[in-house]
Amino acid sequence: MAELQRYKAVISYDGSAFSGFQIQPNGRTIQAELEKALAKMHKSEIVKIVGSGRTDAGVHAKGQVIHFDSPLQISVEQWKKGLNALLSHELVIMNLEKVASNFHARFDATEKTYVYKVYTQKTRDPFRYHYATHYPFSLNLDQIELAANYLVGTHDFTSFCSAKAEVLNKVRTVREIKLENMRDELIFTITGSGFLHNMVRIIVGTLLEVGSGKRNASDILGILQGCDRQLAGKTAPPQGLYLWKVEYNG
Amino acid sequence: MAELQRYKAVISYDGSAFSGFQIQPNGRTIQAELEKALAKMHKSEIVKIVGSGRTDAGVHAKGQVIHFDSPLQISVEQWKKGLNALLSHELVIMNLEKVASNFHARFDATEKTYVYKVYTQKTRDPFRYHYATHYPFSLNLDQIELAANYLVGTHDFTSFCSAKAEVLNKVRTVREIKLENMRDELIFTITGSGFLHNMVRIIVGTLLEVGSGKRNASDILGILQGCDRQLAGKTAPPQGLYLWKVEYNG
Repeated sequence: MAELQRYKAVISYDGSAFSGFQIQPNGRTIQAELEKALAKMHKSEIVKIVGSGRTDAGVHAKGQVIHFDSPLQISVEQWKKGLNALLSHELVIMNLEKVASNFHARFDATEKTYVYKVYTQKTRDPFRYHYATHYPFSLNLDQIELAANYLVGTHDFTSFCSAKAEVLNKVRTVREIKLENMRDELIFTITGSGFLHNMVRIIVGTLLEVGSGKRNASDILGILQGCDRQLAGKTAPPQGLYLWKVEYNG
Repeated sequence: MAELQRYKAVISYDGSAFSGFQIQPNGRTIQAELEKALAKMHKSEIVKIVGSGRTDAGVHAKGQVIHFDSPLQISVEQWKKGLNALLSHELVIMNLEKVASNFHARFDATEKTYVYKVYTQKTRDPFRYHYATHYPFSLNLDQIELAANYLVGTHDFTSFCSAKAEVLNKVRTVREIKLENMRDELIFTITGSGFLHNMVRIIVGTLLEVGSGKRNASDILGILQGCDRQLAGKTAPPQGLYLWKVEYNG
């Protein structure tokens, strides 16, 4: 049997076409489409992929990272071309490279960046329904930035984690929350060492409540300290969220 | 019975969510969604709408125009709000106004503008799949402009019309074909008094063949004169096409 080579691929997908990343009995998933394409290239042999993490239904990715192992002796250009020809239009391999056999897309990730897009114009835009969240209220950006500053750093993010999450340690480090205002679009860019389930969406949902005056920026302190999901704001919808970039050492 | 008032509405829709404008037995259509919303506002009475023209499955609209009649005594603001609350996310009423009872969205249209978007980067972009056509070839824009100039004016456009079309008179006037190059996107803006079925998509498909060197710009003359659909290029896909604006006198 030929030796296995590990590959790392950066993939991009329009999440509105999928029921999320992870394989499930019903619905199209990113993992299933990738593994189906890989099986076609391996004469129906099952080739498993490992992602840097899951994304929920409707959540997009500009730079999700996966790894897989294969005995096929083909160039990275042939890999990219071959897989892209088999994948559907809403999913694409952006980049592919050979990596050491101990590289791990999830365990070796050192930092992730998410982007969340919100638009505030009064009339909803049918072309943005799947790609940004409509929040037609006037927002105080200074207050949002003030609140965001309380979240940056190493904290117990229990209040900003889906109550269903089963992970025990909910301490995470948020390195930066950047806010940009481009025409009528407000873009949150959130970078950190790791994120809990729904953490970015609950952070954005809470910051929007601060921006529209429903909460004070300084409330964030008490929300963090309370360690209770009920204290934070609503979970912002999935369609505004993009897994933007995953960083690895070296 | 209350007197009927005629209304003109400008609507916008993401065509990727629909099987086209016109009602049909299977599949979501724009007409069906609008008439369902109107029926809800009229205690299940059927209220028919008339559009400026049909759009095919996957074709978008930024400024499609419709008209309908109603006995309801509500303000145009209430109309807009009421209908938008009942319509799905991919379809929106942008503007609504009272018009004379003899206004007709189709017969009174004096000019229409279509936009067609093409992107040329090598790797396909999953976020543009439904919204622009991927044509990863280098294009000679000067040749496209030269070819476009042959199409401007009043001509028999039989060669640029779906062979299935049942209309007899295929003479139409194209007032302008504008070409813009924005980053990696090529945008065709085509304005004319009226368009035959698939006319814009066949024009764009043929111009792309000129741009990539498969045809000469001057071939357009012979294609027009031949009056034969077989002479023109491929029909460009629907997802790059937008019905942009419909003009009326006065």
